[in-house]
Amino acid sequence: MASASRRNAGFQPELRKNIVTREWVIIAKGRGKRPSDLRQDGDSQDRPPQFDSKCPFCPGNEGKTPPEVFALRDGGPRNSRGWSVRVVPNKFAALRADGSDALRSVGIYSARDGFGAHEVVIESPDHDKDLWEMDTQHVEGVVEAYRQRYLAYEVAESLRHVLIFRNHGPKAGTSLIHPHTQLIAGPVLPHQVQLELLGAGHYWEYLGKCVFCEIVDYELSSGERAVFESDHFVVITAFAGRYPFETWVIPKRHSIRFADMSDNYAIHSAPSAEYNVRAYHWHLEIYPRITTLGGFELGSDIYINVISPEDAAKSLREVGQE
Amino acid sequence: MASASRRNAGFQPELRKNIVTREWVIIAKGRGKRPSDLRQDGDSQDRPPQFDSKCPFCPGNEGKTPPEVFALRDGGPRNSRGWSVRVVPNKFAALRADGSDALRSVGIYSARDGFGAHEVVIESPDHDKDLWEMDTQHVEGVVEAYRQRYLAYEVAESLRHVLIFRNHGPKAGTSLIHPHTQLIAGPVLPHQVQLELLGAGHYWEYLGKCVFCEIVDYELSSGERAVFESDHFVVITAFAGRYPFETWVIPKRHSIRFADMSDNYAIHSAPSAEYNVRAYHWHLEIYPRITTLGGFELGSDIYINVISPEDAAKSLREVGQE
Repeated sequence: MASASRRNAGFQPELRKNIVTREWVIIAKGRGKRPSDLRQDGDSQDRPPQFDSKCPFCPGNEGKTPPEVFALRDGGPRNSRGWSVRVVPNKFAALRADGSDALRSVGIYSARDGFGAHEVVIESPDHDKDLWEMDTQHVEGVVEAYRQRYLAYEVAESLRHVLIFRNHGPKAGTSLIHPHTQLIAGPVLPHQVQLELLGAGHYWEYLGKCVFCEIVDYELSSGERAVFESDHFVVITAFAGRYPFETWVIPKRHSIRFADMSDNYAIHSAPSAEYNVRAYHWHLEIYPRITTLGGFELGSDIYINVISPEDAAKSLREVGQE
Repeated sequence: MASASRRNAGFQPELRKNIVTREWVIIAKGRGKRPSDLRQDGDSQDRPPQFDSKCPFCPGNEGKTPPEVFALRDGGPRNSRGWSVRVVPNKFAALRADGSDALRSVGIYSARDGFGAHEVVIESPDHDKDLWEMDTQHVEGVVEAYRQRYLAYEVAESLRHVLIFRNHGPKAGTSLIHPHTQLIAGPVLPHQVQLELLGAGHYWEYLGKCVFCEIVDYELSSGERAVFESDHFVVITAFAGRYPFETWVIPKRHSIRFADMSDNYAIHSAPSAEYNVRAYHWHLEIYPRITTLGGFELGSDIYINVISPEDAAKSLREVGQE
């Protein structure tokens, strides 16, 4: 059923290694042609309808997506109506399961098939209801879908990492309005996660403490960047955030992997078999898209943030009180 | 003359270190309020006028910028008309010379003053003439300004790196139309440059060759990603480019630093006092802003490029032939 012809036919995505920096890049031609119901200029538009007959994520259109790999449903057979949360392979996948895991040479360079998984978590049958408008029980269902799919890939020998991410609005790269989250599981460890693991590992070795637990303690005592605190989580603006209003949600309990949590929310999580993993502490990072990245950011990886994290936290606390 | 009050008064920019990844970020509040004559929605607009009385980079408005630090001029005193290329400190600087070079602790975190330099190279007195419309002799003047300012900062003990970059159009983060290039010199080595130096150093140690010289040789023999070749430079699309149409301009001659060149064009250049610098090879990277970065790119540093570098090179060669 899940034949290649139902996905982005023609081009097998490829992972390529930058020969200088040794960073991996995904070349995925087919993704340039994916559908979009958002206007190009990035302006907001009127509230969308509750149901859109052309939307592949709306109920009744289950046949327009590859067959589901997970669903929470009250009834009905697979790939029909009756679901509340539904997970399907991404039709325009950046990584696909039908590839080889072997490295190959392309002249002086290295490449490999874009082997892995790319899934879409359709968060609700409602075309227009965003995550913050859903009731808590429904959101718990969405998070349970994250957790189930995370666990499904964590055991895969040939996959090194699972990233769960959610884009909101056209400026963040969303091409479809219907609220959804994405999961990408890949055979290489993202450079950003490598840096986090290495940094957290060194902190643990030198100081005998988890750096994220230290952040939780320090931010709660200083209060300057604290936005919200619940029984289980702390929400802060990041001291060295790259983006204006960059916000981290950190569980208070030291917990390495997202899938360990009982029933809450997530995303930067340790890979299954890495060294120093005991030093890691899963968390969720939010990057609002307010400013434009320029040549300095792209050329140096040093980001210029025009709003101080302390001012951002103050604004967010005020909004929370309203 | 170049008093702080003439620049972005009030807030001294700050460099902050991410305690987990150890990457530096610049917090520069004042830059959020800089002038803009570009429309917010990123659409193209009609061709601007040749002269704009409100533009701080137009002739006659020399008093609206901080005093010039370099100029090519046919006559006239400093900070008056008569220049063909003019370099001034950025009024809304991301890094400033009037700070301390000392590291300080902020609770568990590290920070330092945003010490360094941020300059604007005003490429021509014409408000509307872009770089590719100027005659070769004028472009040589622009490049000579780059080289002079590069040399001015290369000798500074407390500055580790100089990056020259040029943003084109609102999607690339330009806030003023008048054609200009920017230079930022800072006290920390950008992570991207660290990775390049390390990678080029390892390649040199293991294989006894410069990785960039290898790229030049291989791309010229394969031809797949070659776009253009002159006596001194090769233009290619990057095999593992992060962005659609990412293009590298590489000098054929092995040359570590941009400032070594006789009289041409540039930008990724080795810092003045780094190990393994003999392995480096300066070059210019071009990142077109066609697609939007989504949560996957921002959260992983793995980029999804939807146009293969081979297809991009083919298109660019065809454009060149027209």
